[in-house]
Amino acid sequence: MLSEQVMRSLTLQTPSKIVLLVMDGLGGLPVDGKTELEAAHHPRLDELAAVSECGVTDPIMRGVTPGSGPSHLALFGYDPIQHEIGRGVLEALGVGLHMTNRDVAARGNFASMDAHGIITDRRAGRIATEKNEKLCALMAREIPKIGDVEVILEPGKEHRFTVLFRGDKLDGRVADADPQKAPHAPQPALALAPEAEYTAGIINEFIRRANEVLKDHHPANTLLVRGFAKYPAIPTMSDLFKLKPAAIATYPMYKGLAKLVGMKILDAGETIEDEFNTLRREYANHDFFYVHIKKTDSYGEDGNFAKKVGIIEEVDKHLPALLALEPDVIAVTCDHSTPAALKGHSWHPCPFLIYSRYCRPDGMARYTERECARGGLGRFPAKEAMALMLANALKMEKFGA
Amino acid sequence: MLSEQVMRSLTLQTPSKIVLLVMDGLGGLPVDGKTELEAAHHPRLDELAAVSECGVTDPIMRGVTPGSGPSHLALFGYDPIQHEIGRGVLEALGVGLHMTNRDVAARGNFASMDAHGIITDRRAGRIATEKNEKLCALMAREIPKIGDVEVILEPGKEHRFTVLFRGDKLDGRVADADPQKAPHAPQPALALAPEAEYTAGIINEFIRRANEVLKDHHPANTLLVRGFAKYPAIPTMSDLFKLKPAAIATYPMYKGLAKLVGMKILDAGETIEDEFNTLRREYANHDFFYVHIKKTDSYGEDGNFAKKVGIIEEVDKHLPALLALEPDVIAVTCDHSTPAALKGHSWHPCPFLIYSRYCRPDGMARYTERECARGGLGRFPAKEAMALMLANALKMEKFGA
Repeated sequence: MLSEQVMRSLTLQTPSKIVLLVMDGLGGLPVDGKTELEAAHHPRLDELAAVSECGVTDPIMRGVTPGSGPSHLALFGYDPIQHEIGRGVLEALGVGLHMTNRDVAARGNFASMDAHGIITDRRAGRIATEKNEKLCALMAREIPKIGDVEVILEPGKEHRFTVLFRGDKLDGRVADADPQKAPHAPQPALALAPEAEYTAGIINEFIRRANEVLKDHHPANTLLVRGFAKYPAIPTMSDLFKLKPAAIATYPMYKGLAKLVGMKILDAGETIEDEFNTLRREYANHDFFYVHIKKTDSYGEDGNFAKKVGIIEEVDKHLPALLALEPDVIAVTCDHSTPAALKGHSWHPCPFLIYSRYCRPDGMARYTERECARGGLGRFPAKEAMALMLANALKMEKFGA
Repeated sequence: MLSEQVMRSLTLQTPSKIVLLVMDGLGGLPVDGKTELEAAHHPRLDELAAVSECGVTDPIMRGVTPGSGPSHLALFGYDPIQHEIGRGVLEALGVGLHMTNRDVAARGNFASMDAHGIITDRRAGRIATEKNEKLCALMAREIPKIGDVEVILEPGKEHRFTVLFRGDKLDGRVADADPQKAPHAPQPALALAPEAEYTAGIINEFIRRANEVLKDHHPANTLLVRGFAKYPAIPTMSDLFKLKPAAIATYPMYKGLAKLVGMKILDAGETIEDEFNTLRREYANHDFFYVHIKKTDSYGEDGNFAKKVGIIEEVDKHLPALLALEPDVIAVTCDHSTPAALKGHSWHPCPFLIYSRYCRPDGMARYTERECARGGLGRFPAKEAMALMLANALKMEKFGA
């Protein structure tokens, strides 16, 4: 957190503007000798790279494959190891639940229990999503509160749901109320710290009452709850960096992550073109824009090399709309690599480019992972990218005299 | 400080010699495609680079623009964030005041106060420097001490002066005795820690007595004091690294910074030629030489690209005088970048070259920022340069068995 203290003490509010373009999961691995970025035709990104400083970032640390939560926190200038975002919170952000700083979030499963109280199926035979929605509505009606604690339910697909417990003095340090295997006896929620005893009690009472409400709904006659996490207390980007930041993202999780650090969530539409239109429309109102492109990651996860290449090329076609705004600083990178060859997030470093009037261009011929690796910025932790963006925007005072 | 402990445990006293040549503010930004270093003709530095290991350094951290104090501490092998040099101390070093480790230093302004005791002008109408000198002499005569605490005054330009409080148990954690705006009531000195109550009292008594001495000298009938800082307790380079270090610098601040870490301050003359002559003359007497060239920074601050280029070329002409001494290790770098294009210090990394019989040359064609960025040393924190110098001088034992 030392670096956060240094940043807080050095940053200035100024009119200069920064655009951080994040192509989720952009980094890849070669297939037939070329990565997705190398195979894609993106002449505008290449032209930008030629007048920019390039490098590669490690989202968390060398060799560590990041989830979306910590990798985004790092790009936003936060230490992703110090500021933990629990599983339940990420889930709640992902389904678009509005959270407050009093909330503990968790992931839930409907499950099956036999006459002896033994969990026989942790997924309730993968009930239909419509059944799930009906059961969540029923529980919402029957169990709106446990004592003073509000219970908020959001159905997911098949047997999955998300639950928020909203009240005072809640604590996320509670072990999973889930035996993790079946058949097995239920596992009550257990506090992992004395301060969480009250919360564990609320959760166990919730499960007891849910069992009553669900008793005639076999195979979904009980539930398991896990990944308890309190909404984290993170200083806002305005507080730390004196920015007036905004997020342009089409998926709930990224809007939620941006909200976590105090960004204004703009109405971004649905397509990549919509997102760039939003940037133009809102450009006057903020001084930091986080623009999130989701589908590079989605196609990476699918193992669809060609479609990932296609998204990169589509973003490249929209780049002139960004350049026309003449931001003082442009950074283009990803939160983590998602090589189609691995069908998932990976530990490979992320290509990073920063352009400003005050950068020291390193004359890279293309914007690719391997060209960036030879760039003047070297290889660095993603959490240091924010200082580079702020410096290039002349938003930082001198350290010491 | 961990790295300092490691260094202390590993370093050896040996006869080998190290020369650290610091061209202040050397790093630049391209103007018409070339940085100052790229535009300069410096064949001897280029020849040296070809047989050296090259890299670039971040003085404090990526994106952070350093002041001269922390950036020099880093080059001398100290953590620049842990070892803070307060504003007043740097000011005192800059005007060449001899400080002891009992001193608290501060910056002062003569100011104007009206009949109601309101500060009406924080700069006393920018009085003439001669008037300032007379008033400082008057105060020195009238207020040589506050209790047991000696008061030492050094006039600066116009309304500015530097003051040292020298005595036992002084503490620099005192807030500025300066309302920062006018018209405004005076702001007494306030302790920021219980241990500084005594010091704040001394400062307030100093202001009270100064007001009496100055009462007939409107517009300079009061004073404001700010930037209080205790002379920092820093282990010496002899203590940490077993060196017998000497500084060759022509400006007071750099002599002061060198003294802070226990270097002997040599009589360096005034010109660059004088400095290299000093090196030759004193070469037998020390095993570490810090040679400081100021004017690369001065011309950078002036935005004078051509004259900064000229200084680089002048240093290059004197390089044979250094090479003729055949030091075991030569490092050439800067404390921070001062691009003429920015007319000030900047966050851009510093070119760094290290030559020894035991380096692994990376065959860079030129000594420039962008060639160094591709060098074998990569990009690293400046505070790690000292270990490289000591290692190349075979002044470090093996770590562990």
